[in-house]
Amino acid sequence: MIDPFNESIGIIAAILTTSAFIPQVYKIYKEKKAQGVSLTMYLIMLVGVLLWLVYGVLIGSIAIILANSVTAVLQLLVIIFKLKN
Amino acid sequence: MIDPFNESIGIIAAILTTSAFIPQVYKIYKEKKAQGVSLTMYLIMLVGVLLWLVYGVLIGSIAIILANSVTAVLQLLVIIFKLKN
Repeated sequence: MIDPFNESIGIIAAILTTSAFIPQVYKIYKEKKAQGVSLTMYLIMLVGVLLWLVYGVLIGSIAIILANSVTAVLQLLVIIFKLKN
Repeated sequence: MIDPFNESIGIIAAILTTSAFIPQVYKIYKEKKAQGVSLTMYLIMLVGVLLWLVYGVLIGSIAIILANSVTAVLQLLVIIFKLKN
C-alpha cells in the first residue's frame, strides 16, 4: 500500500500527463491522420503502456494504473484511426 | 524498496514509452516546429512529468524516476524549440 499523500501526488501527475494527451488524440481523430508519428511507434508505446499497467498492479500504485489504463485506451484509438486511414 | 522483478518490468516499460518519444522530439528539432501541439500543453505535461518524478522518489520507484527524468529533459527541449520559433 502506498501512502495516501504520495498517492495523491501521483494521481495529480496522472491527470496532468494523461489529459495533455487528449487534445492530440482529438486532433488525429478530426484530421483523420496521425502526422509524423508511425504506427510502429504507437505499437511500441502501447506495449510500454501495458507494461506500465502491469507494473502499477504489481506495486499497487493507483496513480500508475489510472494513468496507463486511460492512456492505453487513447493509444488504441490512435492505432485504430491510423489503420483506418 | 520495490521487488527487483517488479522493478525490471517497470524499467522495460520506461524504456519503451520514453524511447518512443525520442523520434518525435527529433522531428520537432529538425523541422524547427512542434505542429499542432501548443506550448501550454507542453507546459502542463512538464508539470505532470515533474510531479511523476516527485512521486517516483517518494515511493522509491527507479522505473518512474528513470522514465520521468528523461522525459522531463525531452519536454524541456521541445519547450525551448517552441520558444525559439
